[in-house]
Amino acid sequence: MSGKQVYFFGDGHAAGNGSMRNLLGGKGANLAEMVNLGIPVPPGFTISTEACIEYQSTQELTDALKNEAKEALLQVEKVIGKTFADPADPLLFSVRSGARVSMPGMMDTVLNLGLNDDTVLGLAAKSGNERFAYDSYRRLVQMYGDVVMGVEGEKFEHAIDAIKEKTGVSLDNELTPDHLKELIANFKAIILDETGAGFPSDPYEQLWGGVAAVFKSWNVPRAIEYRRIHHIPGDWGTAVNVQAMVFGNMGDSSATGVAFTRNPSTGENEFYGEFLVNAQGEDVVAGIRTPQQLNQHGREMLPAGNKAKDLPTLEDVMPESYSELCAIRTQLEKHYCDMQDIEFTIEDGRLWMLQTRNGKRTGVAAIRVAAEMEAEGIVSTEKALLLVEPDHLDQMLHDQIDPSAELKVLTTGLPASPGAAQGTIVFSAEEAVEVAGDGTKVVLVRRETSPEDIAGMNVAQGILTSRGGMTSHAAVVARGMGKPCVAGCGELIVDNENGRIEIGDKSFARGDAITINGTTGAVIEGLPGLVPPHMDDPNLVKVMGWADQTRRLRVRTNADSPHDAQQAREFGAQGIGLCRTEHMFFGEERIMRMREMILADSVEARREALTKLQPMQQEDFDGIFRAMESLPVTIRLLDPPLHEFLPTTEGDIKTLAGDMGVAVERLEQKIESLHEENPMLGHRGCRLSLTYPEICEMQVSAIIGAACACKKGGVDVRPEIMIPLTGTQRELADLRELTIEVATKVIAETGVDVDYLVGTMIEIPRAALLADQMAEVADFFSFGTNDLTQMTFGYSRDDAGVFLPDYVRRGILPADPFQQLDQSGVGQLVEMACKKGRETNPDIHLGICGEHGGDPSSVAFCHKVGLDYVSCSPYRVPIARLAAAQVVVREKLEGGK
Amino acid sequence: MSGKQVYFFGDGHAAGNGSMRNLLGGKGANLAEMVNLGIPVPPGFTISTEACIEYQSTQELTDALKNEAKEALLQVEKVIGKTFADPADPLLFSVRSGARVSMPGMMDTVLNLGLNDDTVLGLAAKSGNERFAYDSYRRLVQMYGDVVMGVEGEKFEHAIDAIKEKTGVSLDNELTPDHLKELIANFKAIILDETGAGFPSDPYEQLWGGVAAVFKSWNVPRAIEYRRIHHIPGDWGTAVNVQAMVFGNMGDSSATGVAFTRNPSTGENEFYGEFLVNAQGEDVVAGIRTPQQLNQHGREMLPAGNKAKDLPTLEDVMPESYSELCAIRTQLEKHYCDMQDIEFTIEDGRLWMLQTRNGKRTGVAAIRVAAEMEAEGIVSTEKALLLVEPDHLDQMLHDQIDPSAELKVLTTGLPASPGAAQGTIVFSAEEAVEVAGDGTKVVLVRRETSPEDIAGMNVAQGILTSRGGMTSHAAVVARGMGKPCVAGCGELIVDNENGRIEIGDKSFARGDAITINGTTGAVIEGLPGLVPPHMDDPNLVKVMGWADQTRRLRVRTNADSPHDAQQAREFGAQGIGLCRTEHMFFGEERIMRMREMILADSVEARREALTKLQPMQQEDFDGIFRAMESLPVTIRLLDPPLHEFLPTTEGDIKTLAGDMGVAVERLEQKIESLHEENPMLGHRGCRLSLTYPEICEMQVSAIIGAACACKKGGVDVRPEIMIPLTGTQRELADLRELTIEVATKVIAETGVDVDYLVGTMIEIPRAALLADQMAEVADFFSFGTNDLTQMTFGYSRDDAGVFLPDYVRRGILPADPFQQLDQSGVGQLVEMACKKGRETNPDIHLGICGEHGGDPSSVAFCHKVGLDYVSCSPYRVPIARLAAAQVVVREKLEGGK
Repeated sequence: MSGKQVYFFGDGHAAGNGSMRNLLGGKGANLAEMVNLGIPVPPGFTISTEACIEYQSTQELTDALKNEAKEALLQVEKVIGKTFADPADPLLFSVRSGARVSMPGMMDTVLNLGLNDDTVLGLAAKSGNERFAYDSYRRLVQMYGDVVMGVEGEKFEHAIDAIKEKTGVSLDNELTPDHLKELIANFKAIILDETGAGFPSDPYEQLWGGVAAVFKSWNVPRAIEYRRIHHIPGDWGTAVNVQAMVFGNMGDSSATGVAFTRNPSTGENEFYGEFLVNAQGEDVVAGIRTPQQLNQHGREMLPAGNKAKDLPTLEDVMPESYSELCAIRTQLEKHYCDMQDIEFTIEDGRLWMLQTRNGKRTGVAAIRVAAEMEAEGIVSTEKALLLVEPDHLDQMLHDQIDPSAELKVLTTGLPASPGAAQGTIVFSAEEAVEVAGDGTKVVLVRRETSPEDIAGMNVAQGILTSRGGMTSHAAVVARGMGKPCVAGCGELIVDNENGRIEIGDKSFARGDAITINGTTGAVIEGLPGLVPPHMDDPNLVKVMGWADQTRRLRVRTNADSPHDAQQAREFGAQGIGLCRTEHMFFGEERIMRMREMILADSVEARREALTKLQPMQQEDFDGIFRAMESLPVTIRLLDPPLHEFLPTTEGDIKTLAGDMGVAVERLEQKIESLHEENPMLGHRGCRLSLTYPEICEMQVSAIIGAACACKKGGVDVRPEIMIPLTGTQRELADLRELTIEVATKVIAETGVDVDYLVGTMIEIPRAALLADQMAEVADFFSFGTNDLTQMTFGYSRDDAGVFLPDYVRRGILPADPFQQLDQSGVGQLVEMACKKGRETNPDIHLGICGEHGGDPSSVAFCHKVGLDYVSCSPYRVPIARLAAAQVVVREKLEGGK
Repeated sequence: MSGKQVYFFGDGHAAGNGSMRNLLGGKGANLAEMVNLGIPVPPGFTISTEACIEYQSTQELTDALKNEAKEALLQVEKVIGKTFADPADPLLFSVRSGARVSMPGMMDTVLNLGLNDDTVLGLAAKSGNERFAYDSYRRLVQMYGDVVMGVEGEKFEHAIDAIKEKTGVSLDNELTPDHLKELIANFKAIILDETGAGFPSDPYEQLWGGVAAVFKSWNVPRAIEYRRIHHIPGDWGTAVNVQAMVFGNMGDSSATGVAFTRNPSTGENEFYGEFLVNAQGEDVVAGIRTPQQLNQHGREMLPAGNKAKDLPTLEDVMPESYSELCAIRTQLEKHYCDMQDIEFTIEDGRLWMLQTRNGKRTGVAAIRVAAEMEAEGIVSTEKALLLVEPDHLDQMLHDQIDPSAELKVLTTGLPASPGAAQGTIVFSAEEAVEVAGDGTKVVLVRRETSPEDIAGMNVAQGILTSRGGMTSHAAVVARGMGKPCVAGCGELIVDNENGRIEIGDKSFARGDAITINGTTGAVIEGLPGLVPPHMDDPNLVKVMGWADQTRRLRVRTNADSPHDAQQAREFGAQGIGLCRTEHMFFGEERIMRMREMILADSVEARREALTKLQPMQQEDFDGIFRAMESLPVTIRLLDPPLHEFLPTTEGDIKTLAGDMGVAVERLEQKIESLHEENPMLGHRGCRLSLTYPEICEMQVSAIIGAACACKKGGVDVRPEIMIPLTGTQRELADLRELTIEVATKVIAETGVDVDYLVGTMIEIPRAALLADQMAEVADFFSFGTNDLTQMTFGYSRDDAGVFLPDYVRRGILPADPFQQLDQSGVGQLVEMACKKGRETNPDIHLGICGEHGGDPSSVAFCHKVGLDYVSCSPYRVPIARLAAAQVVVREKLEGGK
């Protein structure tokens, strides 16, 4: 490593700027940017992410790095007019991590570096506040012991409890300087005891230890777990920000707070935040003391009974600082063209900004912020589109509690993340993972959450906490995950030990059912009915309108019933990209006919059973065509292996044999004869239609029959018949010929001429490799990326659970390829097939109907390779619409068009 | 169709020539070529294969075609000095099919076209032989009724039987002209009765009907079946040869025969053939009369007791014609540079050649012909290599009867196709297919075979017939298929009706066991021991030597034991390309250790079980390294899913539970937990080693341990460790790292430095698509085309039997892709992977270890895409060596290098 590794900032001048996020991390880049904007920021320096990556292999800070850091430190001393390690008036530093993207709570922080038994005296003298000085020192030793030296945090908590008990005080801030001195000594003893090494009194040693600890924390298990969930590459590294300390805990003219430039829950254009007088920043986020509101508007928004409703606002207690903060708020929003999440400290009446970053927000808020910022002229419509993350829309589509349901509301907490969630109560992340493992829905109930809980939050339906505010860990993470969350629910008593919660005089045990409403903060007994959400939010309509104007990709839906089709149409689907006909065969009466068909001994008997099924199929298609009037409907012919329709248990087999009047043995033989070693690679898809053309004939007859009937009734129908699982041109050509033959006959019989297309799924690797041949006999390709992923990787989706999560965790795969399209492998086949297909059939229509059609990164890929449409489940349609627009905007911005 | 469709030949001049095989068919091109060589050939004309293809869509002969044919017919009249349909002295024609490649017995023939109630009188008068004339007419009506008009042949046979009974004669040739006239009238009545149409008396109508019948016969089921088995495309079509009739049945100065220019069974350079005096050509091939030998040498070769041993030879009875034939024999061999299969007729002392084509031959014969023709200067060594078909070698490798076995020889027939075969007796093709369907070995016993029997012959181990000679249908087809055959076994009485055979006083029923020795003609009771063949034939050694000098591809073998390795080395294997370690785990004691390992609850317990397995594995590798001294040995790490090693039946599970001292329930749970929906796509291959690195460690330890021990003992070892089923670079990189770590440790411990390679199978489509990445961390790629085919097609090899044979039969696939590499799909991936792999790792070593490594067309493909070696089962090694040489020769010939 030879390049520059340390970037100074302070006093209106920074070596870095906001565009250097990859090198300086989000926080470092923004600190530099703020300094350049003239905003008051404590001076400091950022050590680059490259230094972090270098550290990972050597596990040592190089002399070059230390020398550069020392030079920057001298600049800080000059700006601030104090000296590091000066016993008379010591300059103190904080050390914080700052990765390229925000990883809340994942990385570790150490404050008050530079204090020791000598300098603490200087701090006490200069501040005129001995208690403050020793409390700061106590915090340093505690944090340093925990974070840098790896002592279990609980040991220090026990020591605090012990001294409180001994002295009879109940709150931390009641401890006297002498108590604190004793505590510091105890802490040092604990550290020596636990690690065999003493707490370092040399400020430089403290500094290097802190920097190294941040670097190390990049690879602690919880950071890796967070990256796994959020698909962050391990080789990005984190930067380290070393910054002069300013103190919000220097007395009643000091304060510290966090704020959003707009309400992160609703998106309302009101300055929204919380602060604590005489506190350090961590106190606000940790959720231990109840924070106060920034302004009157925030206080009004609090639910009745919330403690903070009676506490004064920053506007009340420090009007000048508040006013300065408001000006900075406006300046930052205009500069960053986005809502900001800021941290500030007021030291003895002077405002310092510690951080700004784009604020996490709920889906509703994201939509509102985008719409209003555009209206306010802060962003263009195109940039406004980028203010909404596709996953935000998911929240808009979350279940809500049925308004007509009678609710037993137990209590109300903070509405930390919108939507309703219900499930059985679990008390820990491990329990959540375990219980949810078998498909049970769970609500995770905690006093407060911490980064260790990430995995449990990820599998829970929703999160309920008894402590913490809107910016608590639980709230921030839940919003990021798009999960309903009720936080800071003070009436809730969580008894982990006995697996119980108490709310008033009611008590609930592990396994009891509970519902939370993250939109209102209500905690509700039992499982009231839920209703699906609506898409009628006017801001959403506006933003989605921009998206629809911007995107090139069309968005269809995967729907197998008129109901789903209608739902998807309301979500903006422009047709059906995949209608799975087999789902129609599982109804009570139909499954019997289906079984008769499968068990038929002759073509005639099979035809007879199919004749009975045909009117039912035709009725299904009729309903779907009507729901999708004037839009294309792609119907896939029978795909699964026939044994999926037969009973498996002894009892069911006996019943069926009785119903059908065949011997049990004969039925068992037939079922046995249909058994396959690897059904995924067996007799299914077009292979069935080639063996039993009469099945194909019945289905085509029903499709075209329904289409003709609809058209006769004035309904504009656009059927597209899709042949699944083709791997050779002849399979497709033969079945296309049969399809056209049957369709022509039906059209002749009904006397109604219906236009229709005949195409194929591309889901077998060979079909993609030979797409030029396939395209010669196809009107369209629809990429079935689920099966294509299975075969390209050789993974059975049903079985890969044994190793796939482990593969993702260990970084063998960057993501689950069934969730995010594997662009380099499976995507290579898709791209090749598009190119080859268009070579021999320039008019071919190209789409995707795998689950990936609703995944934002996969949608962007589909746009780039030139597909005509994506198709996804109804609830993913708005997300796909937005993702399809965003990729266009990003292309424009990057391409400078 | 506008081009020329009809090609005249005769009188030393032909419109076509021998190079026009695609257009004129093999027979037509050779007739033209023979005419151009000045060889006496009855004049005629060939209607092109293009006309046949055109006919398939219209099912009509166009006027253009008829006019062209009439012009050619006029030329024939001019040459021969007779006129078609002339009542005084009629010119008669034969109509025969002739496809691009010989399809014996597949296509239909009509003789004597031009005869009717008027012209028969002229023929009788001119020939002075009324019986001959009416017998010719009878044959025409019978053949025409059968072949052109579709009357069941049996009806005519019944009519013949009836007239014989009525008149009291027992042989056809005892029928008088009046009998024949009555028979002709009866035949015509049968035709009218069966078809509603009369036998056409107009010679031109007869001609067009005959031509159309040949065209139609291209697509009869038995022709399609033959093409399926021999991989002949359906769009080649057949030509039609219309040729002036010459008669071998005009009396005792006439004869007809078939011959091979060398002995097709042994390859000996002796003129070898059979003939019948006063007979038409079909009589010889049909095997109804016992044919006589061409010359003394042939007669000497006959087994004692063969009727023909006492019959005069052609040399005896027609010495001039024989001498002329010998000259033609030499001329043809020199001209065609290959052994010829010829048909001739002697009409009243004058020799006419009816056909020449490259002769089918046994493997031994092919090798001898190639070696001797090279020695005689007829062909170069390179062209000699092309005289051997790779499948011929298969016969050289067939089982032979153990020379030390005591044999109960029941009788001896003609040694029609070499090798020994044994199995239970079946009496029809259908029965053969049915009984062989469950893996039972069968010997097909027939009076004589016909094209309808092809499917049955294909599944039988061998064929035994009671009638017919060395050129009978059974003999020709069996040699083509490389199956042992004993033909013309006169002592054998086949009683189809009662499902019995009788030989002397012994009787055998359906299902009894029998053995035939196609090399000696012996028919043997029961199932004597068989021994594997040897490769020590000096001609074979010579030819294989040329092959080894010519080929670029190296040939390795797939072998899992020292015995197989040794066997393959004798067959010329240049190393092991695939050693499957899992096969070593199924031994009695080993399977217990393996199960302990699988059922272990902890890494420690697993390691303990593995520690017990390690010495056993190491011993296996030791033996293999020694057998393959100085040659590379590629060892694949554990590949199959673990549940394959566990018991499946209730009893076995109980026993195992008892042996291991675990509860049955627990064992059942474990087995259940290892169950997979699609094991082919499940937890196997490298995925196992990533989950349980200790398995990989044990195996690498055993491999390198054995290698070090061998090297210490002076054995030159070249281990190559192969990681299976990789689909991502990280899988391979991680396991490569582990492998090297373990190997380094073993090498350090033993103090013996062993060179080894670490590479991977390429069998997952994604690995091929991303071969550039894979190659960065691989010393070699070995294409596992079995799995690659499964995944590229989405076919489970275990399950595809339901539809794959049908796919091949219907031409949806040109061949079973598990037998012949699918070059356009799977091959595309192989080619891509070679190219990409060499881009990032120019030194990478490339091979194939799927079954395709022993398939000639696939070997040629492997050569063309630039692989370094192929690996196949030991018995396919010589075939692969030859195929690898032939592709080089063909490239030279085609490329003109």
